[in-house]
Amino acid sequence: MPPEREEDEFLPRRELLEQIDTAIEAGDAARLNELLEPMHAADIADIIERLDASGRRDFLALYSGEIDGEILSEIDESIREEVLEQLPPEVLAEAVREMDSDDVVDLVEDLDEPERAEILAALDDSDRAAVQQSLTYPEYSAGRLMQSEVVTAPEHWTVGDMIDFLRAEEWLPEQFYHVILVDPRRHPVGYVQLGRMLASRRDVTLNELSEESFRTISAYADEGDVAYAFNQYHLISAPVVDKDDRLVGVITIDDAMSVLDEEHEEDILRLAGVGEESAITDTVIETLRQRLPWLMVNLVTAIVASLVIAVFETTIQQIVALAVLMPIVASMGGNAGTQTLTVAVRALATKSLTGGNVWRVVKREAAVGVLNGLAFAVVMGVVAWIWFDGMSLAAVIGIAMIINLAIAALAGILIPLTLEKLGADPALASGTFVTTVTDVVGFFAFLGLASAVLL
Amino acid sequence: MPPEREEDEFLPRRELLEQIDTAIEAGDAARLNELLEPMHAADIADIIERLDASGRRDFLALYSGEIDGEILSEIDESIREEVLEQLPPEVLAEAVREMDSDDVVDLVEDLDEPERAEILAALDDSDRAAVQQSLTYPEYSAGRLMQSEVVTAPEHWTVGDMIDFLRAEEWLPEQFYHVILVDPRRHPVGYVQLGRMLASRRDVTLNELSEESFRTISAYADEGDVAYAFNQYHLISAPVVDKDDRLVGVITIDDAMSVLDEEHEEDILRLAGVGEESAITDTVIETLRQRLPWLMVNLVTAIVASLVIAVFETTIQQIVALAVLMPIVASMGGNAGTQTLTVAVRALATKSLTGGNVWRVVKREAAVGVLNGLAFAVVMGVVAWIWFDGMSLAAVIGIAMIINLAIAALAGILIPLTLEKLGADPALASGTFVTTVTDVVGFFAFLGLASAVLL
Repeated sequence: MPPEREEDEFLPRRELLEQIDTAIEAGDAARLNELLEPMHAADIADIIERLDASGRRDFLALYSGEIDGEILSEIDESIREEVLEQLPPEVLAEAVREMDSDDVVDLVEDLDEPERAEILAALDDSDRAAVQQSLTYPEYSAGRLMQSEVVTAPEHWTVGDMIDFLRAEEWLPEQFYHVILVDPRRHPVGYVQLGRMLASRRDVTLNELSEESFRTISAYADEGDVAYAFNQYHLISAPVVDKDDRLVGVITIDDAMSVLDEEHEEDILRLAGVGEESAITDTVIETLRQRLPWLMVNLVTAIVASLVIAVFETTIQQIVALAVLMPIVASMGGNAGTQTLTVAVRALATKSLTGGNVWRVVKREAAVGVLNGLAFAVVMGVVAWIWFDGMSLAAVIGIAMIINLAIAALAGILIPLTLEKLGADPALASGTFVTTVTDVVGFFAFLGLASAVLL
Repeated sequence: MPPEREEDEFLPRRELLEQIDTAIEAGDAARLNELLEPMHAADIADIIERLDASGRRDFLALYSGEIDGEILSEIDESIREEVLEQLPPEVLAEAVREMDSDDVVDLVEDLDEPERAEILAALDDSDRAAVQQSLTYPEYSAGRLMQSEVVTAPEHWTVGDMIDFLRAEEWLPEQFYHVILVDPRRHPVGYVQLGRMLASRRDVTLNELSEESFRTISAYADEGDVAYAFNQYHLISAPVVDKDDRLVGVITIDDAMSVLDEEHEEDILRLAGVGEESAITDTVIETLRQRLPWLMVNLVTAIVASLVIAVFETTIQQIVALAVLMPIVASMGGNAGTQTLTVAVRALATKSLTGGNVWRVVKREAAVGVLNGLAFAVVMGVVAWIWFDGMSLAAVIGIAMIINLAIAALAGILIPLTLEKLGADPALASGTFVTTVTDVVGFFAFLGLASAVLL
């Protein structure tokens, strides 16, 4: 049975995108509106991101009146300021008033004071207070991630009380999945799934329906830890409390999912030595600014490795085969080290490498390193023997391979563990350290052994 | 204001883990039960994963009677078969009966026929039929991910009808957040958030409350695309339909979040040339089996690069400084190429690099490559000039650097794009291709120019 739909069913059709481009080029605002009308805000935001800066200006000249809170909160940070500057003040004010407090926080936290004040001025007093409260918590904390719009109930209420309250209440969050039970001092004491409430008689008290999985999140918790908790415990929403354990807001799983996505993005970009703020919308200059520093670090480490080679210049002059073979030893070490460090960084990020199993994993990696070394010592020994017809050269490269792959494994696991212990991000710097170690050890072991044995 | 709780508030305390170890070693089942009783199933599963194989046997000898459906569905695939084998048949049967159909599918899909049949035999007829239905959909499809337990209502029902139905219904899913409206032929026509239902009077029809964001997912859709849709459109749950657009199940966001997490894991491990099934619980042999093939591929490409060096053996013999400097050119190319390819692979995975902006991104990367090349040509030219006191050598390494960094940028973007076009996973093979290109081009440009200019 073949799939019924196209492979990329979740992306806007190509023709649609072309029609949109045509409408922008023609300056046809009516046509553009008509094409974008049925689209989800997230897809409209993607279209804005895919344009270049001048295309974006043209687009906004036609469409800026239609930008609402939903679209605005979907637009990527990298181009948000650019878009904000082009919005008419009344459109911006209206959009901001529609947004949940967490989205407003996300919007204003990176803005400078005058722009921030302008946006806050558009809000109702109570919304502004909620946003300002959120901004008192540290960056990347649960307090910044939460929304202050929460549905609560006193713990003694019945299902009937709750239903009557909800039916009478004018204002409710656009989406909510639990009611949080609070005591008189606003400490959360439980939470009730709406499904269980709907399935219960009116006289049942909410307390009886409270979920076992109930847990609160500190407003100071790191957002990465929050995402971990949602993923680990299958939470859909969770109450956020201040340092006195009083309810200050709620985090919902869609926000946790975005954080998980961003954290992964950061990990993968950091491992590759790319600034984690990198975005597909960046200009040439922004891209250069992110990448040059890491290439500079790499240049320094490459020069260090070359200094090792320089020590053995006379050896190389006598046996030029060494120059041919030495990159192989270094390259194998670098790759094996990267394998180990990636597994280690990932395991640290998912909290699956902890006190309990560190020693076992280190032993495993060391064993794998030695066995890899033995395997490639044999393979490369044979290759070198055939290629250069020298048994001693084959032995030298074989032993160097064992040494370098064993060291690569140890560096690959110990360097990220050490960085984590020191409070640094292992994804950020491990790669450079590990390949420096494997280059230096690789060249030194191979050329040093060759000098000792072959000359 | 300092955070009130410990940094890793979501991990079990270290002392608790030590007490658990002690109880296992002492063979004290009562103590172990007492310690694990308050813990979440996901944390118990993590404890089982962190033990080594013999520790796991000891643990299960004491605790296997307590393993329930929740714990079982949390246990990582890599050790699941091992755990299943040690469970008493009646415990396994009871655990399986407790599980939602999607968790049973996840459990049995990788099992061999006799084990699978044994587990299916434990289910009620209707549950077994649901699981078998799921298994008819392709691996990694929405059909495998969905659960068949769904709360539906005819579209003409009122809020009152629905509440009466839910109060009377004996069986309901443990968690549900929406009611799916279906027509008489079971085509989903809308869905209603429970919160909106609770806030509405009994005589309001459900149709009026249906969400605008309503969308269905094909049972044949790739699970990665499903995760994308949940993340992109902030879905909490979504109905799954067969090829006749009939409702067959529902996917909830916690499952989509797990898929997103796994896809990231695969991407990051594939980029590093580590088998994507790699797990922290793997033995030395399993780890070797995943990593050796990629190191073998790397060895072949390293030998190819060495063949290029071998062409210039006589040049190196005359100017041994070339042997010292050549790894720098190759290393810078490799790093710059990896930066570009990581950004490209990530952008492809998040569907942010598509028809609309490919050409612009390729141009940007080429410009960045040339500018990086110019910058490091100057830096490295100066270093080489000072180090080896040769202006021609400085010019040669500078020009080689420009060539290699420009090629690195083009390879870094074009190779993943081509692999994606061909239907291959760009994360899997791009790295090897790109570094092969940068090694070969780096050595060839540098040594070739040196032969032409310096001899």
